[in-house]
Amino acid sequence: MRLDQSRLKKYLGLRREFAGGDYINLNPIQRGGILSGEARKALVEFGDGYSICDWCPPKTPRLDLIKKPPIHDFMQDLAEFLGMDVVRVVTRCREAKFIVFHMLGKPRDYIVVDSLAHYSTYIAAEAAGLRVKEVPHSGYPEFKVNLEAYAEKIEEVKRETGKPPVAVLLTHVDSFYGNLNNASQVAKICHEYGVPFMLNTAYTSGVMPVNGKALNVDILVGSGHKSWASSAPTGILALKEDLSKKILLKSSIVGDWSGRSFPIKEIPLLGCTVMGAPIVTLMASFPFVVERVNRWDEEVKKARYLVEQLERIEGTRQLGVKPKQHTLIHFESKGFYDVSKKHKRRGFFLYDELKERRIVGIQPGRTKHFELNVYGLKWEQVKHVAESFLEIAKKYGLNVS
Amino acid sequence: MRLDQSRLKKYLGLRREFAGGDYINLNPIQRGGILSGEARKALVEFGDGYSICDWCPPKTPRLDLIKKPPIHDFMQDLAEFLGMDVVRVVTRCREAKFIVFHMLGKPRDYIVVDSLAHYSTYIAAEAAGLRVKEVPHSGYPEFKVNLEAYAEKIEEVKRETGKPPVAVLLTHVDSFYGNLNNASQVAKICHEYGVPFMLNTAYTSGVMPVNGKALNVDILVGSGHKSWASSAPTGILALKEDLSKKILLKSSIVGDWSGRSFPIKEIPLLGCTVMGAPIVTLMASFPFVVERVNRWDEEVKKARYLVEQLERIEGTRQLGVKPKQHTLIHFESKGFYDVSKKHKRRGFFLYDELKERRIVGIQPGRTKHFELNVYGLKWEQVKHVAESFLEIAKKYGLNVS
Repeated sequence: MRLDQSRLKKYLGLRREFAGGDYINLNPIQRGGILSGEARKALVEFGDGYSICDWCPPKTPRLDLIKKPPIHDFMQDLAEFLGMDVVRVVTRCREAKFIVFHMLGKPRDYIVVDSLAHYSTYIAAEAAGLRVKEVPHSGYPEFKVNLEAYAEKIEEVKRETGKPPVAVLLTHVDSFYGNLNNASQVAKICHEYGVPFMLNTAYTSGVMPVNGKALNVDILVGSGHKSWASSAPTGILALKEDLSKKILLKSSIVGDWSGRSFPIKEIPLLGCTVMGAPIVTLMASFPFVVERVNRWDEEVKKARYLVEQLERIEGTRQLGVKPKQHTLIHFESKGFYDVSKKHKRRGFFLYDELKERRIVGIQPGRTKHFELNVYGLKWEQVKHVAESFLEIAKKYGLNVS
Repeated sequence: MRLDQSRLKKYLGLRREFAGGDYINLNPIQRGGILSGEARKALVEFGDGYSICDWCPPKTPRLDLIKKPPIHDFMQDLAEFLGMDVVRVVTRCREAKFIVFHMLGKPRDYIVVDSLAHYSTYIAAEAAGLRVKEVPHSGYPEFKVNLEAYAEKIEEVKRETGKPPVAVLLTHVDSFYGNLNNASQVAKICHEYGVPFMLNTAYTSGVMPVNGKALNVDILVGSGHKSWASSAPTGILALKEDLSKKILLKSSIVGDWSGRSFPIKEIPLLGCTVMGAPIVTLMASFPFVVERVNRWDEEVKKARYLVEQLERIEGTRQLGVKPKQHTLIHFESKGFYDVSKKHKRRGFFLYDELKERRIVGIQPGRTKHFELNVYGLKWEQVKHVAESFLEIAKKYGLNVS
């Protein structure tokens, strides 16, 4: 089909509106994925298609076995860093979850998940034909997952199906309130029932210290583009040795006419996964990430500072567990909401006002509830954000204590 | 886990050995994936994690519905370009195949494939629990797939299982010999039996004109990093309208406690797929790709020229169908193989000699059989490659006619 080139001009010169250092971007899903300087250089170097396949080993052609660039070493270093035995880089954290569900479960089997799990946890289960049973949370204002209830939910599955769930999933830090959950507590319950325990660390590993061994995790999944200073799409699938044998099953299919077979390939990875630029950004950022997780306490201080400041505004409170143990923050602001009801731009006034102060990333139109993330901001930026909110509040006549 | 930074130095300054314009890279899987200038710029602009999510529509949060950058338009333009109804960008061509197999098939169902199908076709089938039945090829020296036999194989499946196969797959151009297959012929057979016809265009769409409508294809899959001047990982899943409803099934899972549901999300895509840099390279290269496919005849001329020149060397012949209709070429060279048997570097002599002439991408160690791809090389580069081979042949006393 010949498409008119004039119609295709929109694809030339693609730019992000708020790229570069001019804006402070508070988008909750973007703070941990900003590339390191090393990753930015590696991205350009490995931009072309199958760039990392230059030295694919001819006799064992598989992504994780490539030694140049040092992908093979990286799999081992990453496993050690996460306190796990075996690591594969897959295309997304959600793909890692799907792989586990698909390989361990059969249609109609159950998994037990926290009720604040990321939507992709549900979809991954659905794609694998599994059913979910949710562990309740406490609701407003803390939205604390009732971790003890994992035992009860496992029991429920057993009663209903005659067998335990395929796996149990806990979202280490959820995407709504940024609540940090005690993984060890759930691990203990799972192991009493002999159920594999999967921890979704999309918002934790890569930004804060996470050790699967210390937490007694069987399956740890993570997101390169969310929390490891990497380009999308990149996911981390980290496993205990015994589970890796069940999940990273090797191909045994044989061509009925040709006799062709592919015993080196791992079935759920479809052979290879991220065969280019994004995995190189993950590797290039790794030394930076290994270092930055040690500065987590300082990041949490920034979050607590911002909460303290914004709660000075009439009708504004942080939802979720207090004090913050993570940099993703959910604010409720009845004050800004009241303003929005009378403003000609409605809820968009807050977005406009923030943008004027070179702050973006909060969803346009929202006032009553909004999430933001301060991870990796400089203190002066955090202060500018706090002052901007206070200034906007005063401008619209809200009390500031 | 604290890893010693000195051990992590290997991840700093990652470089490709033969990057840049100095070397001619003949790697069969890499020629079509070299970024356009526009893609290279876009890659840097959208390098950060979830870079394309800046303007994710809050009420319909899904990758293909994003309007800024123009992903939504792109899905439609891409569909039009490919002569298909609905397009989604997925993480790999193999993932597109898996999605189709997984959504249409049930464990133990059959698919019928050509016996030169890419290994990932087999693994995708295996991952979906399906069995494959292969359509034979003619063997040495043409390795021509017997397209008529598709009917027979569909019959075989029907006899064996009482129902037709879930789908039929044809590899448009195979990765071993670069043979181009007549897709319409197989489409006709499939439609007589009412079986969905999938065409794997990993080596064709993006480099040569391919129109799914003209070829009567139901499912067209392609590879951005292989043939669309894009970064990995990117795959194309293009569907006829009726099949899109079966394959891009929307989520209907509901949280049993929370009542949460996600009806906008497409199950097999796990919500979103390539949420960053690579999809932007695919878009940025699109105007370039739309233009370049029209220059395909010239690319084939280069391939035929190289075959003509290399066949002047004693014991060297092109395998696969003649004359070439694609730029991926398989050479058999008994002459170079004889040299290798006496050379102290064995088969590596050919690699060494080529590298000395700034030519890389042929698998080190191979002489008797090797594949290469001339796609996108300038004529002077093709001539340099030809002359280099002739020069090496003469140096080692092989006759050159």
